[in-house]
Amino acid sequence: MPEPFWKTAISKVEPNKILVRGYNLMDLVGKYNYADLTYLLWRGELPSQGCSRMMDVLLTVCLEHSLNAPSVDATRFVASSGVPLQAAVSAGVAAIGDWHGGAIEQCAKMLQEGVTRTKNQADSLKHTAEEILQEHRNRKVRIPGYGHPTHTNDPRTGKLLAIAEENQLRGQHVELAQAVEQLTEKFFRKHLILNVDGCIAAIISDMGFDWRLGKGFFIVSRTPGLVAHAYEQAYFDTPYKAAKWDEIVYTGPPERTPPR
Amino acid sequence: MPEPFWKTAISKVEPNKILVRGYNLMDLVGKYNYADLTYLLWRGELPSQGCSRMMDVLLTVCLEHSLNAPSVDATRFVASSGVPLQAAVSAGVAAIGDWHGGAIEQCAKMLQEGVTRTKNQADSLKHTAEEILQEHRNRKVRIPGYGHPTHTNDPRTGKLLAIAEENQLRGQHVELAQAVEQLTEKFFRKHLILNVDGCIAAIISDMGFDWRLGKGFFIVSRTPGLVAHAYEQAYFDTPYKAAKWDEIVYTGPPERTPPR
Amino acid sequence: MPEPFWKTAISKVEPNKILVRGYNLMDLVGKYNYADLTYLLWRGELPSQGCSRMMDVLLTVCLEHSLNAPSVDATRFVASSGVPLQAAVSAGVAAIGDWHGGAIEQCAKMLQEGVTRTKNQADSLKHTAEEILQEHRNRKVRIPGYGHPTHTNDPRTGKLLAIAEENQLRGQHVELAQAVEQLTEKFFRKHLILNVDGCIAAIISDMGFDWRLGKGFFIVSRTPGLVAHAYEQAYFDTPYKAAKWDEIVYTGPPERTPPR
Amino acid sequence: MPEPFWKTAISKVEPNKILVRGYNLMDLVGKYNYADLTYLLWRGELPSQGCSRMMDVLLTVCLEHSLNAPSVDATRFVASSGVPLQAAVSAGVAAIGDWHGGAIEQCAKMLQEGVTRTKNQADSLKHTAEEILQEHRNRKVRIPGYGHPTHTNDPRTGKLLAIAEENQLRGQHVELAQAVEQLTEKFFRKHLILNVDGCIAAIISDMGFDWRLGKGFFIVSRTPGLVAHAYEQAYFDTPYKAAKWDEIVYTGPPERTPPR
Repeated sequence: MPEPFWKTAISKVEPNKILVRGYNLMDLVGKYNYADLTYLLWRGELPSQGCSRMMDVLLTVCLEHSLNAPSVDATRFVASSGVPLQAAVSAGVAAIGDWHGGAIEQCAKMLQEGVTRTKNQADSLKHTAEEILQEHRNRKVRIPGYGHPTHTNDPRTGKLLAIAEENQLRGQHVELAQAVEQLTEKFFRKHLILNVDGCIAAIISDMGFDWRLGKGFFIVSRTPGLVAHAYEQAYFDTPYKAAKWDEIVYTGPPERTPPR
Repeated sequence: MPEPFWKTAISKVEPNKILVRGYNLMDLVGKYNYADLTYLLWRGELPSQGCSRMMDVLLTVCLEHSLNAPSVDATRFVASSGVPLQAAVSAGVAAIGDWHGGAIEQCAKMLQEGVTRTKNQADSLKHTAEEILQEHRNRKVRIPGYGHPTHTNDPRTGKLLAIAEENQLRGQHVELAQAVEQLTEKFFRKHLILNVDGCIAAIISDMGFDWRLGKGFFIVSRTPGLVAHAYEQAYFDTPYKAAKWDEIVYTGPPERTPPR
Repeated sequence: MPEPFWKTAISKVEPNKILVRGYNLMDLVGKYNYADLTYLLWRGELPSQGCSRMMDVLLTVCLEHSLNAPSVDATRFVASSGVPLQAAVSAGVAAIGDWHGGAIEQCAKMLQEGVTRTKNQADSLKHTAEEILQEHRNRKVRIPGYGHPTHTNDPRTGKLLAIAEENQLRGQHVELAQAVEQLTEKFFRKHLILNVDGCIAAIISDMGFDWRLGKGFFIVSRTPGLVAHAYEQAYFDTPYKAAKWDEIVYTGPPERTPPR
Repeated sequence: MPEPFWKTAISKVEPNKILVRGYNLMDLVGKYNYADLTYLLWRGELPSQGCSRMMDVLLTVCLEHSLNAPSVDATRFVASSGVPLQAAVSAGVAAIGDWHGGAIEQCAKMLQEGVTRTKNQADSLKHTAEEILQEHRNRKVRIPGYGHPTHTNDPRTGKLLAIAEENQLRGQHVELAQAVEQLTEKFFRKHLILNVDGCIAAIISDMGFDWRLGKGFFIVSRTPGLVAHAYEQAYFDTPYKAAKWDEIVYTGPPERTPPR
């Protein structure tokens, strides 16, 4: 039998009824909050109380980073050009790439593979941490989730770890993440802090999230801010935001005449 | 003095500190939930307890509508083509247009202008409702926020109004919205229900939101679902989702030969 | 009978055959160039020789405007964040809004309505031009397609008009556009030049294009440049392009403590 | 000295002058066509006559594939939801991913690395072809640029190769691509045709294009069609295109009651 063209396990619509993962949306609204329902959409089940609290923190800790973020800047340029709100927000979401929020995904993958390998080989997490660092040093690439260009002591990581602890959600992925942090100086000659992306990666891994959902946390966290920036730009700032022509450094060939 | 190129009232970043509307993000996370902080970003102030509860409901009541939504379908086609998660979500956000969530914006505008006009002219809301209906009938256009293609008795509207009532947030905009509903049959020969978009429009207007933020509620509500659909499509469905060639009805000219 | 879900007059795919507006794509490629085929896609027919030449000029005259364009800036911020090429280009396309290329659409609408009104009322184009100017002055809005922030004597307009003339494509829409230009000083106290957007609007209207396709010209014109900028940013510039935190002017409330 | 924030080698804007790669845009328009200027933007130089002809063919051969393409379907859903033209086109561009046009990039990378390796090791292209096939078979992945779901004898590849031949643009990359094709049956038990993506990949590699520009060809080729589909959907089809609720197969848990 051929696969149906339209198919989903997420939700079901009928006249006057919407089921989300089996629950009637109307039985959920007002009882479960936005973070709970995001958890339900992504995991298929409602969260425990601890996971509920953690989820909300995970979705707010990356709330805003002002214009010091490519996604916000992209949103503002688009918003300045005379478009509806969603078009500007859409451009900002597109910017949540490998170097901007994407470390959550990459770091969660690294930690999940590391913990699995540790278990399969009955190895120690410390040894796995060394292998991870060695491997990145050999490939001459950065370790996703470590270091930050602006924050030397990221205020967000301590908070996240404390709340994970309080809710008994710390597990082997956080342990591995911290083991890596402690060894960064040995392998890279300078201490690289576990940054907010890395911290989220470790905690969502301990909560059982697939690493491929990693960017989802950042996308949802930043969307209200992208809306706020699109609104501020469109209605309280000048239109047609663009680099001024006399501030653009041109590095191409000097003026010349075409052959024909 | 020229306007600074980079400027915002939303947030401020310094090394190891992030202020959102004046509050240190670290003083907010864990105390205020996602809906509260969305309110803060959009209004500049933290919500009262009633507004906090209402906000969360407003951001969850439109959570999902399965594949019966252009935004979800757009996300799934893009997700099937081998792109990172955010690119698929970005396309879905772009689809939150005038016919898909956009009625919140348009209906809020109509209600806010209606309430203002009523006050300025010391008129009755009922009379304003008649004027609104008359005007739409004359222009032969639909009234934004009324009627629904699938739901004859939208389960979401009663819930929203009840929670607005409980939290003392019902005001003149809801009153005007209901006055319009009651008169639809008189002007359009069939009863048009106040739908979920119209209901959100009325409540956010009573809460004091600028109508130009209307689509923001729908965008934020649907983003977790867009993430879930992008993830399901990319990892649990077949790649390259596209209409099958033999199911596409071609309505163009028959085969012909170019002049040269 | 219900409408088919998948339906188009643009093209038809079968195994080993692709028809575009009735022509076998393989009979076109190599004989008709990119501009010809864009014309075919948008109009349903192949262009005359004059229209072919004009079309190519219309699609190249807005080729590039360096970083002095919101679309290019949006593309560069997105490209800097670690995304595939198309995601960055997609964000740039989203920025082609009412204030950035969109004047083609608006001005073409204004001119097409103006020429129709002139014909219907057996009026003169000069009188219609006066009505248009009067109406914009009364509404206190800019006339789309007139004036330019950087170019006082836009080098592109003379070229466009000369080529339209050479190819016998000048008609009443260009005439009306120029009548408006000549009267701008009378109505707005300063001479507003017919800019490149306005000029394209007038010519495509004389060629018979629906004004609602106006932005299409700008989108197609700029896409190769958006690709070039995405490529340059991603591979020859530093990643994570963002406003520097200490150059962002924060205009929000001073630091404060949340109530709880 | 710090790097300038705004910097590009692509173009330069001054009042009344636009330089593209050193040439005054006004000296180019009308003399060089769209394909030539795309070449100039991407390569920094104007094309030879042969490259000019080839470029135009490369940018038209993938012009359209009707609704049998995720990008077109995404565009149509977005266009149906009440958005400006560019928002719908933007969503379509986002869909040009690894499984949809992306094979150009991947196949060009494979061929460019293959030719380099052949030269460095003074090896034969046939042997390199075997290595490539072996490697893909070992990794159990598809070879990018080979095979097609609809076309068993893609009409576009013969055309492309003939025109490359005519213009003396066939080189080692095309040779390697064909060597791989000839050996597919030996390694994969069925003959996999060199498809249109693979063919473009080989030719642009022989023309000296960086593989990382590969998707650019597909993006530019499809943009006029995306505009046509957005226009057709928005103005000549029904709004709010979405899967019908009773045609969506729900595969999630049966209806259930939430714990609280």
